[in-house]
Amino acid sequence: MSALPREFALIARYFRPLAGPEGLGLADDVALLAPPAGKELVLTVDALVAGVHFLPSDPPDLVARKLLRVNLSDLAAKAAIPLGYLLTIAAPADTTDDWFFSFAAGLAEDQREFGIALLGGDSAATPGPLTLSLTAIGTVDAGRAVLRRGAAAGHGIWVTGTIGDGALGLAALQGRLADPSGFLAQRYHLPEPRLGLRLAGIAAASMDISDGLVQDLGHLCRAAGAAAEIETALVPLSGPARAAGPSWLETCLTGGDDYELLLAVPPSSEAALLAEVKRATLAITRIGRFLAGPPSVTVRGPDRALMTFSRPGWSHF
Amino acid sequence: MSALPREFALIARYFRPLAGPEGLGLADDVALLAPPAGKELVLTVDALVAGVHFLPSDPPDLVARKLLRVNLSDLAAKAAIPLGYLLTIAAPADTTDDWFFSFAAGLAEDQREFGIALLGGDSAATPGPLTLSLTAIGTVDAGRAVLRRGAAAGHGIWVTGTIGDGALGLAALQGRLADPSGFLAQRYHLPEPRLGLRLAGIAAASMDISDGLVQDLGHLCRAAGAAAEIETALVPLSGPARAAGPSWLETCLTGGDDYELLLAVPPSSEAALLAEVKRATLAITRIGRFLAGPPSVTVRGPDRALMTFSRPGWSHF
Repeated sequence: MSALPREFALIARYFRPLAGPEGLGLADDVALLAPPAGKELVLTVDALVAGVHFLPSDPPDLVARKLLRVNLSDLAAKAAIPLGYLLTIAAPADTTDDWFFSFAAGLAEDQREFGIALLGGDSAATPGPLTLSLTAIGTVDAGRAVLRRGAAAGHGIWVTGTIGDGALGLAALQGRLADPSGFLAQRYHLPEPRLGLRLAGIAAASMDISDGLVQDLGHLCRAAGAAAEIETALVPLSGPARAAGPSWLETCLTGGDDYELLLAVPPSSEAALLAEVKRATLAITRIGRFLAGPPSVTVRGPDRALMTFSRPGWSHF
Repeated sequence: MSALPREFALIARYFRPLAGPEGLGLADDVALLAPPAGKELVLTVDALVAGVHFLPSDPPDLVARKLLRVNLSDLAAKAAIPLGYLLTIAAPADTTDDWFFSFAAGLAEDQREFGIALLGGDSAATPGPLTLSLTAIGTVDAGRAVLRRGAAAGHGIWVTGTIGDGALGLAALQGRLADPSGFLAQRYHLPEPRLGLRLAGIAAASMDISDGLVQDLGHLCRAAGAAAEIETALVPLSGPARAAGPSWLETCLTGGDDYELLLAVPPSSEAALLAEVKRATLAITRIGRFLAGPPSVTVRGPDRALMTFSRPGWSHF
């Protein structure tokens, strides 16, 4: 039997060690998953394209971890527990073994951190840029996923962590903004999925912020048939984001790459929310309220004046 | 609220109508799937890249259907029943609305044919070629999936349908081979996933042939720790493939894009196999046997002479 193509050698060397038992050693056409009793499966898919969603010069291990984490962030927003993932890599012919080694090492590191395993995948050649797609699977107790729909007038608008660091990190990596501590670049490269919050029964609606706070808040409004008003003075900014100055505020509010959670919480659940984020040692901040009215997002600046934006958020096309 | 980016309009217009209830109207970050009781989930992912796996001139509806079907073929090989899929589209900026319309129409047609629904997806811009990735999900009765491993010396090697048409169809579409009836091009564009065969308890091992009969048979050998011998005189060829002549035999055996099933069947199960394919109105042919010995594939030509190949099968890199 002649030597196997390079594809199989790469899979055996770098990816088979990442496979969980459901992945059948990546030696079958499929993964076989016995769903845990009483659970629903939560499925999400996100793609990253070199030169579009990450910089071709980004370290491969960080690209791998970001690819995983942007998907885990979607699971976090549903209060799901991650279980595993399937991966597609369309790679240019000149992608080196070193690149695959580092990429797989990044996956391995985050598999350990998040307790997940590779279930399956596909590899393809491409004459274009490196293109990655990842399907992540998690579980929730049946009926307990927190959806995008469910916000209502009177609910508070809450966000975890700090807003805008990822977009500013991209600006820093592109040389448009100083980042002496490297904090902003780190936030761009390695988002922190806010897993582990028990949001069922607390949040009425939830999503993660990936395309910009203003645009993603618009999605919650449309799903609810409600309006939203936020105050920029309340939006939590990191020290480095505050240091960037007010000219970067619009970037923070619309730039995307936050991977923080955006929640609608009834006032009656605020105490439970604060207790839960304290238990999880996370920060959370109320930045506004949902209001009666047709879907719209009103942003009031430091002087409570209405802010408008040249672009509300990130478009994928 | 300003107008939404084009992405959301495209999703709303072309893809939301394809979503099943688990897809939450494509208006959430995730799909929510309640697994049927007593079932295991079967998961597979396959990608197609324009210019690599399909011709940029291929009709978008056929590209969509091929993308679905190459994944359904993997489910068929496990004797699984397809349930739904998640989709990633990385599209160049000049991809037209007409392209998306036709692509979604192809998905809709095959969703009806195979009784499945869209569960979720992601869209991305790319400066490179159109790149598609699809994760398909099916179900099997717990413990009843037919895996790649399980072949043993003495088992017959069986294939459904006819071998080589897809590879010859590509040659025809590239102008290298006459295809007066269009049969070969049709077989390349629109593989027929061999769903519905109740293979559990009949086949000891199963996979679909996507990368060429010889190479894929090598995978069954490695998974089993057994050798295989096939006779080209037994390999089922369609009329147009026979008409192409003996100079195309190597292409038929190694070219890939067959999406027929390759099975290991103990002699004691042959009667049950033949009854089952008759029930499903499929054709099936025994082309050789597994033998004791280290993994290897022996191919005997019309004169029973040993055949060797310049390339055993299709490499993805």
